[in-house]
Amino acid sequence: MQVRVRYAETDAMGYVYYGQYATYFEVARTEAVRALGLPYTELEAAGVMLPVREMQVRFHRPARYDDLLTLTTELRELPSVRIKFWHRITNEAQALLTEGWVELVFVDANTRRPRPAPEQLIRLLASPPQQ
Amino acid sequence: MQVRVRYAETDAMGYVYYGQYATYFEVARTEAVRALGLPYTELEAAGVMLPVREMQVRFHRPARYDDLLTLTTELRELPSVRIKFWHRITNEAQALLTEGWVELVFVDANTRRPRPAPEQLIRLLASPPQQ
Amino acid sequence: MQVRVRYAETDAMGYVYYGQYATYFEVARTEAVRALGLPYTELEAAGVMLPVREMQVRFHRPARYDDLLTLTTELRELPSVRIKFWHRITNEAQALLTEGWVELVFVDANTRRPRPAPEQLIRLLASPPQQ
Amino acid sequence: MQVRVRYAETDAMGYVYYGQYATYFEVARTEAVRALGLPYTELEAAGVMLPVREMQVRFHRPARYDDLLTLTTELRELPSVRIKFWHRITNEAQALLTEGWVELVFVDANTRRPRPAPEQLIRLLASPPQQ
Repeated sequence: MQVRVRYAETDAMGYVYYGQYATYFEVARTEAVRALGLPYTELEAAGVMLPVREMQVRFHRPARYDDLLTLTTELRELPSVRIKFWHRITNEAQALLTEGWVELVFVDANTRRPRPAPEQLIRLLASPPQQ
Repeated sequence: MQVRVRYAETDAMGYVYYGQYATYFEVARTEAVRALGLPYTELEAAGVMLPVREMQVRFHRPARYDDLLTLTTELRELPSVRIKFWHRITNEAQALLTEGWVELVFVDANTRRPRPAPEQLIRLLASPPQQ
Repeated sequence: MQVRVRYAETDAMGYVYYGQYATYFEVARTEAVRALGLPYTELEAAGVMLPVREMQVRFHRPARYDDLLTLTTELRELPSVRIKFWHRITNEAQALLTEGWVELVFVDANTRRPRPAPEQLIRLLASPPQQ
Repeated sequence: MQVRVRYAETDAMGYVYYGQYATYFEVARTEAVRALGLPYTELEAAGVMLPVREMQVRFHRPARYDDLLTLTTELRELPSVRIKFWHRITNEAQALLTEGWVELVFVDANTRRPRPAPEQLIRLLASPPQQ
């Protein structure tokens, strides 16, 4: 999936601000989960929250205003109480700009305690829909 | 009250992004209401929400990274169902950078319907604490 | 054109933060000008800057996480030294959420002084490309 | 040093958005370097840029609107071509909310190539000013 860099996302160096990549990663994992057939809003409606536990980002090259970025998302293992998304961001010249991962925790919205990943999500990950 | 411009708040022109001023205005009215003795968190705890109804901003001169901005806040009339804050932002050379106003609506957090301003707030505005 | 509300854009009320609409308006006018055949990056490359002079926003209904927003942009007069974009934002149920306008000033990037709108832009606005 | 959580920085979970911590870390390192006697704006004026190379953040507990956060910054080694800041964020109850590090690269603003840390910075770090 792709995002176009907004002026609001740049900084005085003329680059995308480094904290902005957390938002790009959010967009990437949101669309990856939607493509599986389980929008994050449905998880929320079912009482599941997904706060972030840890993230790491490595910045190789800067992105600039109006760049069209391609975001890729990968799961390398099935989720348990946690789920870890690996991301890469490339520009229109296919240069790798940024890579990183974000680990989130499944939390029960009522008790605010960790809980296992929803079974529906694990089933969809084990046999994703044909596209 | 004062805020220091963060790098995250600048854009590729080297100026503070125009949408950022909404946040500066938020900080200004938050501290103005806290100085009255009624933190916004107490309003929220009492079931009062304050979504924004309208705003206008006029940009005279740009702010830049690391500028120390002075924010002033003024109420020109007592609140009813709405409250309107007038703001001015100046830099260290006392130059006027930005001015504007934000009008918010008192909303009951349960019914999500408009409601009158809390009497405690009106009392504090009518006779503000000595400083 | 459309934008999907990101989690980063929401606030603790569960709504899109009011300052975020400045960014949506930026995206709307960027794509409107691109559709004319004159990307804003070309203006910048030609030494034209477009800082914001004034804006007004009226908030009718809140937007929420993952809402798919439709942004419309209108010019009601040809630009001179200034250009004024009128925007409306609606949700998937066609409800009007927000409306407002943003007025920007054409500035020479070298002198940082106001200058007239580029003739190419005025020509394109007078006879926009067939779509 | 301390920052007060702004409404703009929260998200629909009622927590500070995870990408916002990059900005808090920026504020923390900016003030740490200013306290040494070498404001980042002076580095920029001397033609030194400091883009981020890598960061890691671990989220232990959420921060909420209006929380007063304490930011601590530590350098565990003298900078070379890179400089790595370690950060911790605690709330008013001294609970650890977030910890992480950010590694930046010294870049020559003209050539946009890496360069060694300025000698003045290394001297100040080796014998910091008495406070």
